[in-house]
Amino acid sequence: MFEAAEIDHKVSKEKFKEAEMELHQRVLTLQQRLRESSKSLIIIVSGVEGAGKGEVLDRLNRWFDTRDVETHAFFDETDEEIQRPRYWRFWRCLPARGKVGIMFGSWYTKPIVDLALKKSDEADMDQELTRINALEQMLSIDGSIILKFWFHLPKHKQKRRLESEAEIKKLKKSPLLKDFSKSYDSFLSVSERAIRVTDTGLAPWHIIGATDMKYRDLAMGSILVKTLEEALADEEAAGANPAANPGESDDDIVAAILNGEANRARVLDSVDLSQQLEDKDYDEQLLALQEKLHGLAWDMFKLRRNMVMVFEGWDGAGKGSAIRRVTAAIDARLYQVIPIAAPTDEELAHHYLWRFWRQIPRSGHITIYDRSWYGRVLVERVEGFASKPQWLRSYQEINDFEEHLTNHGTVVCKFWVHIDQEEQLRRFKSRETDPRKQHKITDEDWRNREKWQKYEEAVNDMVTHTSTANTPWTLVAGNDKKFARVQILETICDRLQAVVDAEKESKPAKAD
Amino acid sequence: MFEAAEIDHKVSKEKFKEAEMELHQRVLTLQQRLRESSKSLIIIVSGVEGAGKGEVLDRLNRWFDTRDVETHAFFDETDEEIQRPRYWRFWRCLPARGKVGIMFGSWYTKPIVDLALKKSDEADMDQELTRINALEQMLSIDGSIILKFWFHLPKHKQKRRLESEAEIKKLKKSPLLKDFSKSYDSFLSVSERAIRVTDTGLAPWHIIGATDMKYRDLAMGSILVKTLEEALADEEAAGANPAANPGESDDDIVAAILNGEANRARVLDSVDLSQQLEDKDYDEQLLALQEKLHGLAWDMFKLRRNMVMVFEGWDGAGKGSAIRRVTAAIDARLYQVIPIAAPTDEELAHHYLWRFWRQIPRSGHITIYDRSWYGRVLVERVEGFASKPQWLRSYQEINDFEEHLTNHGTVVCKFWVHIDQEEQLRRFKSRETDPRKQHKITDEDWRNREKWQKYEEAVNDMVTHTSTANTPWTLVAGNDKKFARVQILETICDRLQAVVDAEKESKPAKAD
Repeated sequence: MFEAAEIDHKVSKEKFKEAEMELHQRVLTLQQRLRESSKSLIIIVSGVEGAGKGEVLDRLNRWFDTRDVETHAFFDETDEEIQRPRYWRFWRCLPARGKVGIMFGSWYTKPIVDLALKKSDEADMDQELTRINALEQMLSIDGSIILKFWFHLPKHKQKRRLESEAEIKKLKKSPLLKDFSKSYDSFLSVSERAIRVTDTGLAPWHIIGATDMKYRDLAMGSILVKTLEEALADEEAAGANPAANPGESDDDIVAAILNGEANRARVLDSVDLSQQLEDKDYDEQLLALQEKLHGLAWDMFKLRRNMVMVFEGWDGAGKGSAIRRVTAAIDARLYQVIPIAAPTDEELAHHYLWRFWRQIPRSGHITIYDRSWYGRVLVERVEGFASKPQWLRSYQEINDFEEHLTNHGTVVCKFWVHIDQEEQLRRFKSRETDPRKQHKITDEDWRNREKWQKYEEAVNDMVTHTSTANTPWTLVAGNDKKFARVQILETICDRLQAVVDAEKESKPAKAD
Repeated sequence: MFEAAEIDHKVSKEKFKEAEMELHQRVLTLQQRLRESSKSLIIIVSGVEGAGKGEVLDRLNRWFDTRDVETHAFFDETDEEIQRPRYWRFWRCLPARGKVGIMFGSWYTKPIVDLALKKSDEADMDQELTRINALEQMLSIDGSIILKFWFHLPKHKQKRRLESEAEIKKLKKSPLLKDFSKSYDSFLSVSERAIRVTDTGLAPWHIIGATDMKYRDLAMGSILVKTLEEALADEEAAGANPAANPGESDDDIVAAILNGEANRARVLDSVDLSQQLEDKDYDEQLLALQEKLHGLAWDMFKLRRNMVMVFEGWDGAGKGSAIRRVTAAIDARLYQVIPIAAPTDEELAHHYLWRFWRQIPRSGHITIYDRSWYGRVLVERVEGFASKPQWLRSYQEINDFEEHLTNHGTVVCKFWVHIDQEEQLRRFKSRETDPRKQHKITDEDWRNREKWQKYEEAVNDMVTHTSTANTPWTLVAGNDKKFARVQILETICDRLQAVVDAEKESKPAKAD
């Protein structure tokens, strides 16, 4: 989910100055329109420690005319607050119509911290998140514009940032700093879940990479301006159709303010396609990994745990040959490969997920999907077979579906096999000339190739919305087929080994 | 929530025969239209044991052309099912477009039974209900018409029904029968919560009183026919605006098929207004109760528990004088009376619940609302100050609000002080002639009186939607003011006594 926010974005000083001034002016104009409207604006500022949330607050307070802006930091509860239902403190801070309330810490803080520190369990957090969704929906329908920002830092950058902060300004150090840094992973996976469950049409989350401070503030500002513009233009229709208004992606909005100056980097750009393997290394590693996988598949069978693998990737990326290297290692009784083509009549007569539910493996078995339910947000999106509201909705539906799988104990491995455009061209041409491969290349492949950029956007959004702690996407460096196969086998073995180790730990072998 | 379903409805044999035949024909016609549509129909049949769910299934299977209808009873999970995620069994049974699936037992069974038998906690159930809401929303947007029936029996009627069933047809007795009957109360309060949380615009619940079998089947049939008609007429707009379509109330729908023959009884009709108290009894009981309340209020203060009382009722029903009998008993430092009039400017600039959140009492204190947030679903509904989607939404919002209170440990007592129209007329006239009371009667009171029936409907719906196990409505028999005051004081003392006893049990007094 945070993959896209970990990509480096750099903004030059000049560009920042220019764009910042423009945003400042637009915020002031919009604030005046807000004053005259029946709407209020709630800005929630959250994210990992060290992302500079305090600086974001300063920026917001510089942009707004502060007369109608209140900033609320929710830290310890006061006596007055403890003696009342927990949401009382938030209700007393809600901005009136025409005004702005900036929340530093919010109703999200407690459920996330409690679960991360294991003071509550997942069901408790979900119950709280359901309350939050109800609150936000209620306020939103009543005319509140709710803008939720999550500022993200990769782990190593957080560490560096916190250390340098600690040196420079000892005074501003949060007392929780040590806890946060230590438990980065657990906080992040809990936050990811909280964001996913509360990423609703009425109050969507905006995840912003905070590595470059200039980019961070411009991204925040351009999303703020865009959201306010749409909400205020929409004023007349308010309440009539409170459904999600799928506008541009955050990415597009930020790019617009930067006039294309900053690089519009995608998650796929983070894959190092130059990686390759020598034949000798490949042969050795492949054999070792296949032997390992063979044993692990039997271990999983004995443990009654099942596994689902999903293979997606560019045409010609080598999904099929990679799958064959996987299945070659597994006993034929234990796996099934399901190639996903156009749906049958019967499948078309049901919800699009129905065909995938049908094929869920029994305990101890492995199902390999050659293409999958992600077609909904890839080919169906790009080709227009699914409408925008439909494929936007699918992210949540797919996450829910995969959660049903993982709750049952299924291990889910998802691979996007990546190659670049030149490599694809090389492979297409060789297919055309090699009589044994000609059946593999069709006009459709050439047509799809023309939509490269659209697919790139779709993959970026797919990874952002559906890569979760339990069901991560693995982006495979596929220009070198050998490297790709080893990367895939390694990933599968690592995931399975972790499961087998965990099972052994929880059920120690009985003494004979 | 089940109050309205406990009212006796009787249908004559002749009326039943005629209406049943009409429904049968309409179902067949609608089924043909369904076949030609892109929609499917899912009927969920649930309710208390003994309500005749099996008979309802028989009726449905008689009405439908069974070629495109499948009935699924979900009982024990098969081996195949246990080895897959829990929802797999439901997905395999989902009807295709054009077809009907009747679910006897469903995704609701396990979460309700688990919580009732204490195999799970409330947060677990809520997590499951969130999954159910997601599933139903997904299916509904995809074109499934989801019809959820809950068949209800009052406790004493269930007991009688189960006993007579056990005698007549020993073979059909469910093995769980004994459990269900024994734990009626706990099942009912858990079911109430499940229904409340999943009563969504896209898949609302229909609660049907099952005491009279003829009424039960006609009510079920008329709601089925009405829902199908609307959904099929709506086919073109499908998916475009999946918001709730607030049509007529179930009550109106059923009344239409009965052509006004059956009594359209309301919950208020169940109040026995003939109850009264002699002066001597009144004086004695009032004094005793006030003394008791005085002590209980101090007990609550010491326990740091607070209380909220809500008084609603007809104009002239005696709310004010009843409140004075309550406050007379409580130390002035411990309570506050909040009369709710038209909202201030500041209040209008916020969500309608904001003004009530402001006034939540601190620990150990009592707040008495003379009129309340229920104005939203009473006067604002009847006068058209709130739109239908707005006040329909409020039931859920109010339930959530009161759950915030009860989760914090607040005791919530809600009174509707009831009188009949004749009694109101008598009181209005006496106010007009008595100079000390003239200020109490305005033109508005006379205008409101003309809307008696609309208010009656609003009160009926209010009680149905917002009377929950933790926050029940007490309908006060107000024709005799003395009786009403004693009933109110008694109710308050009983609730507080139960809380004080429970607290003492959980924290036994320390030995000195």
